[in-house]
Amino acid sequence: MTALVSERELSFLLNELLQMSELIKRPRYAMHSDEVFGATLDVARRLALDIFASHSAKGDQNEPQFRDGMADVLPETGEAWQAFSEAGFLAAHWEEDEGGSQLPEIVLRASMSLFFAANVGTTAYPFLTIGAANLLRVFGTPELKSRYLDAMGTGESAGTMCLTEPDQGSSLGDIKTYAIKQGDGSYRIFGQKMFISGGDQNFTNNIVHMVLARIQGAPPGASGISLFLVPKWLVNEDGSLGVRNDVALAGLLHKMGWRNTTSTVLSFGENDGAVGYLIGQPGAGLAQMFQLMNEARIGVGLIAASIAYRGYAESLSYARERRQGRLAANKDPAIPQVCLIDHADIRRLLLTQKTYSEGALALCLYASSLFEDQQTHPDEQARKDAALLLDVLTPVVKSWPARYGCIANDMAIQVLGGAGYTNEYPLEQLYRDQRLNPIHEGAEGIHGLDLLGRKVRMNNGKGLDVFVSVVARDIAAARDIPGLSKDANALQEYMNDLASVTRQLVALQSESPDLALANATTYLDAFGRITVAWIWLKLACVAAQALESGLDEPDADYYRGKLQAQRYFFQWDLPATRTSLQCLTAVERTSYDMKDEWF
Amino acid sequence: MTALVSERELSFLLNELLQMSELIKRPRYAMHSDEVFGATLDVARRLALDIFASHSAKGDQNEPQFRDGMADVLPETGEAWQAFSEAGFLAAHWEEDEGGSQLPEIVLRASMSLFFAANVGTTAYPFLTIGAANLLRVFGTPELKSRYLDAMGTGESAGTMCLTEPDQGSSLGDIKTYAIKQGDGSYRIFGQKMFISGGDQNFTNNIVHMVLARIQGAPPGASGISLFLVPKWLVNEDGSLGVRNDVALAGLLHKMGWRNTTSTVLSFGENDGAVGYLIGQPGAGLAQMFQLMNEARIGVGLIAASIAYRGYAESLSYARERRQGRLAANKDPAIPQVCLIDHADIRRLLLTQKTYSEGALALCLYASSLFEDQQTHPDEQARKDAALLLDVLTPVVKSWPARYGCIANDMAIQVLGGAGYTNEYPLEQLYRDQRLNPIHEGAEGIHGLDLLGRKVRMNNGKGLDVFVSVVARDIAAARDIPGLSKDANALQEYMNDLASVTRQLVALQSESPDLALANATTYLDAFGRITVAWIWLKLACVAAQALESGLDEPDADYYRGKLQAQRYFFQWDLPATRTSLQCLTAVERTSYDMKDEWF
Repeated sequence: MTALVSERELSFLLNELLQMSELIKRPRYAMHSDEVFGATLDVARRLALDIFASHSAKGDQNEPQFRDGMADVLPETGEAWQAFSEAGFLAAHWEEDEGGSQLPEIVLRASMSLFFAANVGTTAYPFLTIGAANLLRVFGTPELKSRYLDAMGTGESAGTMCLTEPDQGSSLGDIKTYAIKQGDGSYRIFGQKMFISGGDQNFTNNIVHMVLARIQGAPPGASGISLFLVPKWLVNEDGSLGVRNDVALAGLLHKMGWRNTTSTVLSFGENDGAVGYLIGQPGAGLAQMFQLMNEARIGVGLIAASIAYRGYAESLSYARERRQGRLAANKDPAIPQVCLIDHADIRRLLLTQKTYSEGALALCLYASSLFEDQQTHPDEQARKDAALLLDVLTPVVKSWPARYGCIANDMAIQVLGGAGYTNEYPLEQLYRDQRLNPIHEGAEGIHGLDLLGRKVRMNNGKGLDVFVSVVARDIAAARDIPGLSKDANALQEYMNDLASVTRQLVALQSESPDLALANATTYLDAFGRITVAWIWLKLACVAAQALESGLDEPDADYYRGKLQAQRYFFQWDLPATRTSLQCLTAVERTSYDMKDEWF
Repeated sequence: MTALVSERELSFLLNELLQMSELIKRPRYAMHSDEVFGATLDVARRLALDIFASHSAKGDQNEPQFRDGMADVLPETGEAWQAFSEAGFLAAHWEEDEGGSQLPEIVLRASMSLFFAANVGTTAYPFLTIGAANLLRVFGTPELKSRYLDAMGTGESAGTMCLTEPDQGSSLGDIKTYAIKQGDGSYRIFGQKMFISGGDQNFTNNIVHMVLARIQGAPPGASGISLFLVPKWLVNEDGSLGVRNDVALAGLLHKMGWRNTTSTVLSFGENDGAVGYLIGQPGAGLAQMFQLMNEARIGVGLIAASIAYRGYAESLSYARERRQGRLAANKDPAIPQVCLIDHADIRRLLLTQKTYSEGALALCLYASSLFEDQQTHPDEQARKDAALLLDVLTPVVKSWPARYGCIANDMAIQVLGGAGYTNEYPLEQLYRDQRLNPIHEGAEGIHGLDLLGRKVRMNNGKGLDVFVSVVARDIAAARDIPGLSKDANALQEYMNDLASVTRQLVALQSESPDLALANATTYLDAFGRITVAWIWLKLACVAAQALESGLDEPDADYYRGKLQAQRYFFQWDLPATRTSLQCLTAVERTSYDMKDEWF
């Protein structure tokens, strides 16, 4: 067992990159201290190692069973949920007067990365609950909150998000689940939802489903969709559990990974309708759900980064111990074999994983700091800029770690060879778990369309402007650091090309939208690679400055590794963007022109 | 269920690209006809669909069990083995006087592609048996053949290859299993072998293990390794089964894919030694095993191509049926949703899969035609050239389909989205099955070293010369075809750069071998991409010529698809080689210089 995400790495990101201590100056965090933040991370690490990681393989090999209309989940999952709740993580970021402890976003996210690295199948339950609770916190009435929200903070109740239906995945505007208003102001919900993670389990008293549905008579499309709170059990005024709601577990889906997370088909209203309560305004459901989804998207990026990091750490530790073969310079069979890590090609596999996993982790925690700043930064303009920048970056934060996390976990298996393909090691499970991330919370193609078709155009392109100027500021800083100026200049060129192709494709959208968006996924990929190159340049600046200050050897080695990884990314990875940018600029149309009957 | 590898595709490759009919002019195939070849493929297709594909998911979900020291395999697997044997496929390529039917290599391989696409976990058993039998056919004594080979042709006995040990994977020169000579000329074998596919099962009377071991007193390293035939059951002179040999099933390994193929740990000589018979000369074991391994490597490439093709076909059929979303030009929710295939990004995912899977399949069948030519081509120089070219191409034929097959199967899942991640569809199993291919029969890194460190240098680079001239000939032909000349010229440039970097790195090997080989996997990847670009140019030439002759629409569409795929590969895929070639030329040393303590 490795240390999941290393303490050194989290400390580097939180303290050296993101200046966590500065948060204490903000009023919301006045009662906190570095010690509190550190203790929180320590608790998370201990729970993640002792209670989550310990049943990750077991949960994978014993997926939930459908028994008597209920999902029967491994008991260890409930114990982990209990420990997570008791440690206060479900409500850690809530206000004190809500029963929370006002923990900053980056501390919570860094803590979550440890749970994700340890056991994503179990951590999915609290992850979804935190998201559902946030929706209720923002849009729920005081009445609904007192009945349903408090229990989601203590762990008595879990939460889910119910969007997808058997016929509707990416096209949410077309969902068919509908709601009929009742005399008492509540609704009755009818329809079927699919791929609902955590849709049933046997370790919480209640489950609060956040359900998208169409109020009878609402207009077609996205503007006709509303958001409802639909509990598994109705809750009485005094907070006690009432009757069972008309929500039935119709079946469990069998997934390649996340096997300990129930993936359910839920039937709403098979009898006289499931009781549901409108959250927010009628027709505002999709917009409201996007608040949760945007948080969940940063979460998915972080999950991907954490799983990639765990695979990296596990394969690194194997490569340091396993002896195999000899180097070309001396193949004498009489000398002992070298370790895997002594082979340059194995170091390539490790270094690539390092750039992907550490780059993704830094990207996601940076995004979390934007999320923080948009809410608690003392300066208004800074709050606005953080919000604009986060909006533009969200598709990248969700998609880049997912795609490159899959490649990283693929490489982790390759380091081990045959052993990596067996369940003696966690790598094959990580590989299967990781594969969900480019799919859920918006498939990669959806995020390409979102980025090029919406995000870079929103507010007259102001989000993109903020991005360009923030990156330019970091490039300017890097230019002053010996050893980084060449790469800083290279990044500026990529940024220029990206800005230019963006203008071109945005202009083309008014004329020929489908052609302009035909290569949107490639655009997303190029945008992402350039973004992560910028993140690596930021990390290299921190490392170079730390090295200049003179350090003990182990810490100097840590920073040298960061510099080497940055160099690797700029030499081997970033130039691949060149082909993408060329095809984008040429509005290359081979896929666009391809006809169904030619396949 | 799709048609596995389509009839049209196999017919295109065998008849139009490889001129299968011409083989009938060679003496060995004088008794054959196009009808015989066609009937063979028909039988293979029927068996693959009816008896292999039908239990692929079941075999995946019910992996073999270790019971009373034996591996208990799903009964359907034995039935499939029986049907495969009875149809004569185990001995199809053997000489008539051996009990075979002298089937040409490309017909056998094309038939195998159907079984691989249908169910690789079950097809692994005959695949390994065919390989082991080929070793025995070439190097075995008549005495051993009569006792052990005939039964491997009829299906009474299966075969395995026993190379890897718990401590030795890629570094075969270091294996520790040893052999002690007995008075009767036989040997007693002692040691443990690991990852032995098909090492035990319950559907054949006997299993013939081809085992690498070191004769006591042999020199260390590769030159001390010999090859032994070690049967599970000894066979009496009259052909009846004798006593159980001292080979024990020590355990089963649990793999991510190929779950219906037993992956075993075998203990040889736990009691008084397993009886083994030397095959060929002492110390020649590794060289002899390489004959089997080279065949098996083409086989692994073909497996990867077939699994990629199946994933492509399944995701194509889903994309044609599933409606989801609308195009940017008209998002009116009142109009019906479009099919997935109507989205350009889905066509990109399908087109990429098409270029990878059809390109890989063409490459592997082309390699099989070289294997054929080196043995039966009437012209001596042509036989020599085919052998040289195949030698150089083998690392590519093994590695390229495996690596890009993984990407293709990843994309097949992505087309389906969440559904692709569940076992309702075969995509997630194909993805897991595919992931073994970059590992077994030499991990990707090993093939990089083999290509750059050995293959392009062998015989004074004659193999590479043949490659360069064969490609140049095809480029010249493509230059005359309107629409292909630009890409033909582009390919020539890549070939020039490849030749130049090869000379540079070969020269550097004498001076600084570890540095020269540090980026060998990247070299393999670039070499592979350029090779497949050449294959696509060949396919495009055939298609363009066919189109010129005037055709019915459906067939014209088929050829137009080939041309579009070739265009796609040259536009989107081949240019990525540019970065690789630049790093190779610069002898980029970031991985080489990376230190253990910096990770």
